[in-house]
Amino acid sequence: MRITGKQLINGQWLAGEAGQYQAVNPATGEKIAPLLSYASKAQVTAAVDAAEAAAPLYANTSAAERAGFLQRCAEEVMALGDELIERVMQETGYPRGRVEGERGRICHQLRLFASSIRTGDYLDIRIDTALPERQPLPRPDIRFMNQPLGPVVVFGASNFPLAFSVAGGDTAAALAAGCPVLVKGHNSHPGSCELVAQALDNAVKACGLPAGVFSLLMGSGREIGSELVVAPAVKAVGFTGSLAGGMALFKLANNRPEPIPVFAEMGSVNPVVFLPQALQQSGAALAQGYVASLTLGCGQFCVNPGVAVAIAGPELDSFMQSAAEALAKTPAGVMLNDNIADAYNKGVAELASQPGVSIAGSGAAVTAEQGFYTQAQLFKVAATTFLANPHLQEEVFGHTSVVVVCDDNDQLLQVVSSLKGQLTGTIHCTEPELAGQSKLVQLLRSKVGRLVINNFPTGVEVCDAMMHGGPFPAATDARFTSVGTASIARFIRPICFQNYPQALLPQELQDSNPLQISRLVNGERTVAAVETAVASAS
Amino acid sequence: MRITGKQLINGQWLAGEAGQYQAVNPATGEKIAPLLSYASKAQVTAAVDAAEAAAPLYANTSAAERAGFLQRCAEEVMALGDELIERVMQETGYPRGRVEGERGRICHQLRLFASSIRTGDYLDIRIDTALPERQPLPRPDIRFMNQPLGPVVVFGASNFPLAFSVAGGDTAAALAAGCPVLVKGHNSHPGSCELVAQALDNAVKACGLPAGVFSLLMGSGREIGSELVVAPAVKAVGFTGSLAGGMALFKLANNRPEPIPVFAEMGSVNPVVFLPQALQQSGAALAQGYVASLTLGCGQFCVNPGVAVAIAGPELDSFMQSAAEALAKTPAGVMLNDNIADAYNKGVAELASQPGVSIAGSGAAVTAEQGFYTQAQLFKVAATTFLANPHLQEEVFGHTSVVVVCDDNDQLLQVVSSLKGQLTGTIHCTEPELAGQSKLVQLLRSKVGRLVINNFPTGVEVCDAMMHGGPFPAATDARFTSVGTASIARFIRPICFQNYPQALLPQELQDSNPLQISRLVNGERTVAAVETAVASAS
Repeated sequence: MRITGKQLINGQWLAGEAGQYQAVNPATGEKIAPLLSYASKAQVTAAVDAAEAAAPLYANTSAAERAGFLQRCAEEVMALGDELIERVMQETGYPRGRVEGERGRICHQLRLFASSIRTGDYLDIRIDTALPERQPLPRPDIRFMNQPLGPVVVFGASNFPLAFSVAGGDTAAALAAGCPVLVKGHNSHPGSCELVAQALDNAVKACGLPAGVFSLLMGSGREIGSELVVAPAVKAVGFTGSLAGGMALFKLANNRPEPIPVFAEMGSVNPVVFLPQALQQSGAALAQGYVASLTLGCGQFCVNPGVAVAIAGPELDSFMQSAAEALAKTPAGVMLNDNIADAYNKGVAELASQPGVSIAGSGAAVTAEQGFYTQAQLFKVAATTFLANPHLQEEVFGHTSVVVVCDDNDQLLQVVSSLKGQLTGTIHCTEPELAGQSKLVQLLRSKVGRLVINNFPTGVEVCDAMMHGGPFPAATDARFTSVGTASIARFIRPICFQNYPQALLPQELQDSNPLQISRLVNGERTVAAVETAVASAS
Repeated sequence: MRITGKQLINGQWLAGEAGQYQAVNPATGEKIAPLLSYASKAQVTAAVDAAEAAAPLYANTSAAERAGFLQRCAEEVMALGDELIERVMQETGYPRGRVEGERGRICHQLRLFASSIRTGDYLDIRIDTALPERQPLPRPDIRFMNQPLGPVVVFGASNFPLAFSVAGGDTAAALAAGCPVLVKGHNSHPGSCELVAQALDNAVKACGLPAGVFSLLMGSGREIGSELVVAPAVKAVGFTGSLAGGMALFKLANNRPEPIPVFAEMGSVNPVVFLPQALQQSGAALAQGYVASLTLGCGQFCVNPGVAVAIAGPELDSFMQSAAEALAKTPAGVMLNDNIADAYNKGVAELASQPGVSIAGSGAAVTAEQGFYTQAQLFKVAATTFLANPHLQEEVFGHTSVVVVCDDNDQLLQVVSSLKGQLTGTIHCTEPELAGQSKLVQLLRSKVGRLVINNFPTGVEVCDAMMHGGPFPAATDARFTSVGTASIARFIRPICFQNYPQALLPQELQDSNPLQISRLVNGERTVAAVETAVASAS
């Protein structure tokens, strides 16, 4: 049995000092062996101290060294083999294909960051050379680059046991940036957390990095997480989860003597607008795509389409009928844990009880007598009712969605205008239809992080161009993505060097540009050495 | 008389509805004509509504259009002529050269942003093209760019009546980004605020922009500023001023139903380390440079060197003597207003009363019988005393500084290690001395935004490579500069377009790259059109 139930603190696996527990199989409700442990406050302090000690050493590693480390992390995760896949399946109820897909995703992500940081683009190098003859005052030589913020705390999400967990996007971005990472693992998949942490620990040791570069701590309730966020050495927090959880951390971090940024991705209802021509041309296919998107993984995605918006008419009636038929074929699904299942059932009951809300379709009823199974549900409501009742905009985490039926395009714009900040906004349309909807596009651009045309929002690509985030309450800070290579910007800050001796500058800033980075030199983007750039500009 | 005492709201100059006041000449304490007015809450709401209405229109302008507008702003400021210079001198007590220098600085800044946004670099364009054949799932086409955040509130600082005021760095950055700006003018130079706002209003009208793109509101106390920060349409705040003022806005903004970022630059003590060889080689010159830096503008700079650190010895004794001699020749100086003069005198008295702190030199005594004159002061304290008394790290805004005398290099490192976050850190040293101080450099890199070698921190260059900001409490967010072209990053956020029809994409994201922007296309930095880039990569 490879799972030990221990914490990873300063490179050592230590039994937690604050009690024991077991993981639960959501498909059966039964406990899974072996016994696991919770970290104590003193153990949190020890882990933070180790991260603080590691921070300047790790910050001094080259991008090439960190790239090698990230690649090694991916190799070590793959080396866990089927034991990891099976443990994740046991702890989450997810099918093998989904779990293998997530593993592929985190390994791709680690490798993508490895290649991305080698380019040096994220350093945003800017060089303004001295102008000693300038009047009335000379200009000194000034050189700008990003550097790591310091130790980062990462909170994994329940719904992505690999992709938004121990070695997920937040961890990969922080490690790529040069920041030590302290992970507070999620209790919904603690054994999976430990296995992945073992892989990262192996990589830290194989690459000869300081032990404090990576730690894993488990805790019940919020105490361990709070201790991590208020520790003075911690400089940023990454979180994926609920609005309540994210806002609790945000307030805690802002009330520290030294406030620190919290990047909380808190989900949203991800509106999907179906325009009439699209419904007319391919209503049945869109209904099937919509139901597939909203029931994928029991709807346990932050980009699950929780609200659809369309204009009343015969094409919408056919769409609704097709959607109801597709939904009826959807089996009851197992949720990640009892809390999520309870919250889903409560949320659905609340939706059903709101005046003017009617059931437009249901998945298969729950027949299992054990485990955390729930039934998919589709609701329908008139736009006037939706506009008058802000509760209908609240996310119900799981496989349910509300179709908002509008009288006309003006009312559709009103509905979109009433929405809060969102991770995504989607329009199903023909191209001429989209061309005529500049107001709709403008409204969605002001509210979302990702604008999707004729796709569904589920499926968040890990790439350079991904923006996974959005205006509040989708995230605490709309200016940052939590997926893709741009997410590294959360964990760096600029510093500039004035009149610094050339030989002692970091390589990235030296005249000769030994790393061949794209730099902004006296206002011109170039990979040329500084002398050349200045000469050719004059 | 060109100054009317009115507010600029939605392109109209309106008498404030919340009372009248007059500016004060700090050199005499006398009131300056004419009568001015304060905005009412209803007027704030009207200005915010106008900014909200302007936001989508202004966001849709091209970079070339905004560049033309910024250049026009600079021309209109210059067209104010000597009336502006004289009013600023009257309201601040600053000499003509300083005021003309500030005017040159803001015009340079507006023009620098104009040329910077034309390059499109700040948009951070990223394109990942579709991979329809990818297994197990196809990759959709995803394109990423930055877009403006929305209306920005700017609080001017007392000490830079032009450079950190109505058309200062925050305003220039927000307008460059495509965000409407609402300025809360500073009551220390209200007539200057109005004149510059007239220039910007002329530019808005000449360029045919929506009236809500720029507003000016004046108010006494904190009420008008608070109203602006809590207005739901406002999406970010720029502030330069005191720690107390910045933190009040930070808390207000974080407690909104939708929290928004506050970029508060709150000053610091800007430690200057003098290493022994440098003192030995050029102690007298360094002492003169240090005194000149600390007394410049009566020390009313956020980068004023408030703490110096050196090792005891004969070279430090000579340095102290030279500094005292230079300081004795410094005339009493007029502070910007009575509050600043009072706070300075109180701060200096508190410093003088701390156990172990002694006076090491003084400027000329105050002889004027009117106006807000104060005397420059230099203090000395042993490192052990400094380390034991956190009050000695607090900024006293004005021409005073504390020299911390260390027993040896280890104690010097301890002193630097004890410092909070700073805008700048400076080392005076020989090159071999710096090469041997990697620990000192590492400590300062973890604490400052700008690391200065053998210069003094005063003088913040407006350029691409400037980082003016730093770890808390120097600023609320260490990841952003408030000076230089990188400061635009505060007022933009990314959005990505998935599977968006080519013809309807913003120009910046179109395959053909009509604006010739440097873009990241499938992982490669290029200005080539997308077809070319993909073809050459395959």
